[in-house]
Amino acid sequence: MAPENGGSADDRLRLLIERIERLEEEKKGIGDDIKDVYSEGKSAGYDAKIMKMIIGLRKMKPHDRQEMDAILELYKSALGMD
Amino acid sequence: MAPENGGSADDRLRLLIERIERLEEEKKGIGDDIKDVYSEGKSAGYDAKIMKMIIGLRKMKPHDRQEMDAILELYKSALGMD
Repeated sequence: MAPENGGSADDRLRLLIERIERLEEEKKGIGDDIKDVYSEGKSAGYDAKIMKMIIGLRKMKPHDRQEMDAILELYKSALGMD
Repeated sequence: MAPENGGSADDRLRLLIERIERLEEEKKGIGDDIKDVYSEGKSAGYDAKIMKMIIGLRKMKPHDRQEMDAILELYKSALGMD
């Protein structure tokens, strides 16, 4: 990346970095949009923490979710948390 | 959210959850795009870890970066890492 290369390698690096920065900005924007939807949910009376749990549960396959529920119940029962 | 409400509250919750899921998908897509740019950088001979450090440094105000550099040098010197 010496100046002798006519700046093309430096340009390439700069363009890569700038592309990442633009994408990071976009990603941050979407993260803000997600926060807005949670706020909207809260205003409508929904619990944001439970909404987040629902998002996580919906990502799981039904079978995996049932298995997790069963193990969770087992542990709760073992710890007298019925 | 009883069925008596004609499903409108349930619909509202479902729509909120689906909006979050779509946004999370988009966010994940951008995250993948970012990974692709790092890969492209690697293929061009750049070190992805250093690129990530550059992204972080460019986010800082020049004054903050200089201050961080000065403190880092101080600590290195205190620990005989010159």
